[in-house]
Amino acid sequence: MAKRIDLNCDMGESFGVYRYGADEEIIREITSANIACGWHAGDPQVMDHTIGLCKKNGVAAGAHPGFPDLLGFGRRNMMVSAGEIRNYIIYQIGALQGFANSQGVTLAHVKPHGNLYNMAAKDPQMAAAIAEGVKRVDSNLILVGLAGSLLCQEGEKAGLRVAQEVFADRAYRADGSLVPRGEPGAMIHSAEEAVHRMIQLIETGYMTAIDGTKLKMEAHTICMHGDTPGAALYARSIREMLEKKGIEIVRMNEVLS
Amino acid sequence: MAKRIDLNCDMGESFGVYRYGADEEIIREITSANIACGWHAGDPQVMDHTIGLCKKNGVAAGAHPGFPDLLGFGRRNMMVSAGEIRNYIIYQIGALQGFANSQGVTLAHVKPHGNLYNMAAKDPQMAAAIAEGVKRVDSNLILVGLAGSLLCQEGEKAGLRVAQEVFADRAYRADGSLVPRGEPGAMIHSAEEAVHRMIQLIETGYMTAIDGTKLKMEAHTICMHGDTPGAALYARSIREMLEKKGIEIVRMNEVLS
Amino acid sequence: MAKRIDLNCDMGESFGVYRYGADEEIIREITSANIACGWHAGDPQVMDHTIGLCKKNGVAAGAHPGFPDLLGFGRRNMMVSAGEIRNYIIYQIGALQGFANSQGVTLAHVKPHGNLYNMAAKDPQMAAAIAEGVKRVDSNLILVGLAGSLLCQEGEKAGLRVAQEVFADRAYRADGSLVPRGEPGAMIHSAEEAVHRMIQLIETGYMTAIDGTKLKMEAHTICMHGDTPGAALYARSIREMLEKKGIEIVRMNEVLS
Amino acid sequence: MAKRIDLNCDMGESFGVYRYGADEEIIREITSANIACGWHAGDPQVMDHTIGLCKKNGVAAGAHPGFPDLLGFGRRNMMVSAGEIRNYIIYQIGALQGFANSQGVTLAHVKPHGNLYNMAAKDPQMAAAIAEGVKRVDSNLILVGLAGSLLCQEGEKAGLRVAQEVFADRAYRADGSLVPRGEPGAMIHSAEEAVHRMIQLIETGYMTAIDGTKLKMEAHTICMHGDTPGAALYARSIREMLEKKGIEIVRMNEVLS
Repeated sequence: MAKRIDLNCDMGESFGVYRYGADEEIIREITSANIACGWHAGDPQVMDHTIGLCKKNGVAAGAHPGFPDLLGFGRRNMMVSAGEIRNYIIYQIGALQGFANSQGVTLAHVKPHGNLYNMAAKDPQMAAAIAEGVKRVDSNLILVGLAGSLLCQEGEKAGLRVAQEVFADRAYRADGSLVPRGEPGAMIHSAEEAVHRMIQLIETGYMTAIDGTKLKMEAHTICMHGDTPGAALYARSIREMLEKKGIEIVRMNEVLS
Repeated sequence: MAKRIDLNCDMGESFGVYRYGADEEIIREITSANIACGWHAGDPQVMDHTIGLCKKNGVAAGAHPGFPDLLGFGRRNMMVSAGEIRNYIIYQIGALQGFANSQGVTLAHVKPHGNLYNMAAKDPQMAAAIAEGVKRVDSNLILVGLAGSLLCQEGEKAGLRVAQEVFADRAYRADGSLVPRGEPGAMIHSAEEAVHRMIQLIETGYMTAIDGTKLKMEAHTICMHGDTPGAALYARSIREMLEKKGIEIVRMNEVLS
Repeated sequence: MAKRIDLNCDMGESFGVYRYGADEEIIREITSANIACGWHAGDPQVMDHTIGLCKKNGVAAGAHPGFPDLLGFGRRNMMVSAGEIRNYIIYQIGALQGFANSQGVTLAHVKPHGNLYNMAAKDPQMAAAIAEGVKRVDSNLILVGLAGSLLCQEGEKAGLRVAQEVFADRAYRADGSLVPRGEPGAMIHSAEEAVHRMIQLIETGYMTAIDGTKLKMEAHTICMHGDTPGAALYARSIREMLEKKGIEIVRMNEVLS
Repeated sequence: MAKRIDLNCDMGESFGVYRYGADEEIIREITSANIACGWHAGDPQVMDHTIGLCKKNGVAAGAHPGFPDLLGFGRRNMMVSAGEIRNYIIYQIGALQGFANSQGVTLAHVKPHGNLYNMAAKDPQMAAAIAEGVKRVDSNLILVGLAGSLLCQEGEKAGLRVAQEVFADRAYRADGSLVPRGEPGAMIHSAEEAVHRMIQLIETGYMTAIDGTKLKMEAHTICMHGDTPGAALYARSIREMLEKKGIEIVRMNEVLS
């Protein structure tokens, strides 16, 4: 059977007059879009437009809920109780479902944003709260988390389908976490090397950590970035190289089926 | 056939540490709750709690979307384009549906809040945008508007079921609009008189305006207030007097059926 | 005596991760910057940075307060009471003064933003409330308003110095208001024609309205735009052409002295 | 010389239609008010009103800046960079100074709110950033921090006058931190015991920790609460008992002089 993987990217992070990300270009290179829900970014106009973009481009639409921190773009840790997290998740998925329903689109997945994603990778209560929120709104939604993280574990415990996410352009530590930006070797700058690492991972089920350790890792979806210069070109080259190597680029639900 | 009417009240207008309204008491006296959706008031914790209150008390839950103006409690006119209004409506209904779905509750209706309600009574574009937003999310939702207003007309044009709302404690002008608060005779202070006016309206289909004009008016639901001292007692007395006169107090969808 | 005029531009309208306007370039071409105060745009990081830019470039720093509507960028009418407007003005000027004080800069002027500016041009209560707010915080601040508008009149009544603002790239109606964008002839597309109109105005004290009427008009400052492609080049060409014609480009307070 | 202490209380934490705290009553019992600045609570109308209350009651007005988290009332940890914290402090103090200036009141002090206060007690970078922000706006402002905390230390390093704050109704651990609410013995419920502890502290310079340890502690101001039932009565009884014991209740700046 052919190896398969999904390419996902954050989308719909503009707000009011403010433009962010090259959504119209990057959407042609990916299979799943994580759409901001108006908390860390995004607004109703942008959400409606982005659901439309997904529909037009045949890309799976998912919710990208974040902390209530527009000023910090959801990239700052906030100590929020589990009950609040669950309800923040429900609110944001629900709001996006409004637009999806209005255009006849079914949401496919949920990927927490920024530091909500990062905190949930390590905090079991937060992870469980997110999983519960997703499940309560719609238990058919796929939960996307850092491969091997507590978020993925809690999603599975809750009975959700879980997409293990990997980063093509980032080095890993032996414990499965990402080498923090700023540390030597954190970033994989060459697209060729990034693809090489992904293919090895898809074919062997192992990722080589920065210290040489072989990490067992599942990989269902690769995180692409839409907010850097040349993002769409980079995404296209990754996509084309993967396809040349016989990896099928398909939506998350097909990877998991 | 027995005469029927619904009693509705705005609910879930607390926010964070701030408490607003006597929700736990008033909900025992009404049949439909209009739940704030986090824009003019309300937050995810409050929304979840209020959906639960409705479920426990057998009260129909509806969305109460407002302008993006927490500071002004949605009580200030904002010149917002029709496209934005439509999307604001979709966003807010969707968010509340998240909580309704998570508790197995089906939303029954949508009543715009404050000055969104007031502006939509007279502005056909805004009214049509609200109706379109409601229809897009779920065409089974009942739209609540000021009896005889453009909002009700646009709701009907859009093919929605429409609940014509009347105010027991307010006087009407000959053109069907409310006498503005502050003008002489604007408020009907006596509960007995309020009920008398409602029964007359329900039985005859006419409301007597402040100048004596007989106004033809449909009445499906009466607006109760939850944020004034003695609100629950007042609501109970209205309810009991109506019932004594043989008016059945039932949910909006039964009134309309 | 040489003819003098100020060139002003809105600045500091970025927010969080969102960038807006070519501040670093346009600031080299102007004499007065109107700095957003965190309500319609701007945030503390941006305000601090923009005060620093003004200091470094010898440009007069002013406050640019707007409606509490980040989502609408302050470009939507809001019906806000006079008392609230006055306090919104005080709040925003005060916040910017915090940064000005911290860098040893004295704020020179206040120009309301977007639809607060537009509404105040025609609404005497709003205009008076703005003037009162400015005066209460610091009666040395210059109030900037549309030339000939009620805002300028109320500023003068309040005893403030007032800078009458004109638009080089916009046509005027016979009543002194701008021809609305979208109407034929509303925009003056040629920089040469824009400058020609400004020089005529400065030298004669009259502006030719779109119907040929000669409008008596004072002109202390010209509004430049920083958020359009080529904004800095356009501003430079306007500046250079004015200087060649013997118009001195100086800060508002020198124009008024 | 008579022993002196200040009584401070958080004020102006209402927002829009939402009422919070018994400001009008508690202000008669205290000497210093910490006024919310519109971020965790408060708005321009409330700020203006509260400055007026201070003026009328002869109470020292201070700024009470908090995290940008109205939803959480500033009571949730947020990981914010030092540069941002400094600018958030400048913004909020500046905004309140606008109202103070407009009423001829001079701000006396700054007390960070909620979890900004708590985090700054232990985080030297955050503490230094707060001190720097205060100093930049006005180096005459007194910085209020938990007695013995890093916030007080950093304030002194920055050359600010610092008011060491103690809690009459809370037990202390041997390291000078408060026993967390919810732990046994955390709260001092009896007003008599609370006063007894305060007098002992003022007279001896030592606080008895929950384990019996004698903690050396300075005390310039006692934190009163305005948001609990009976708050004003409690404050009055504390005040009267202190006065009976010969402790003078005076403003912070007199305590420090």
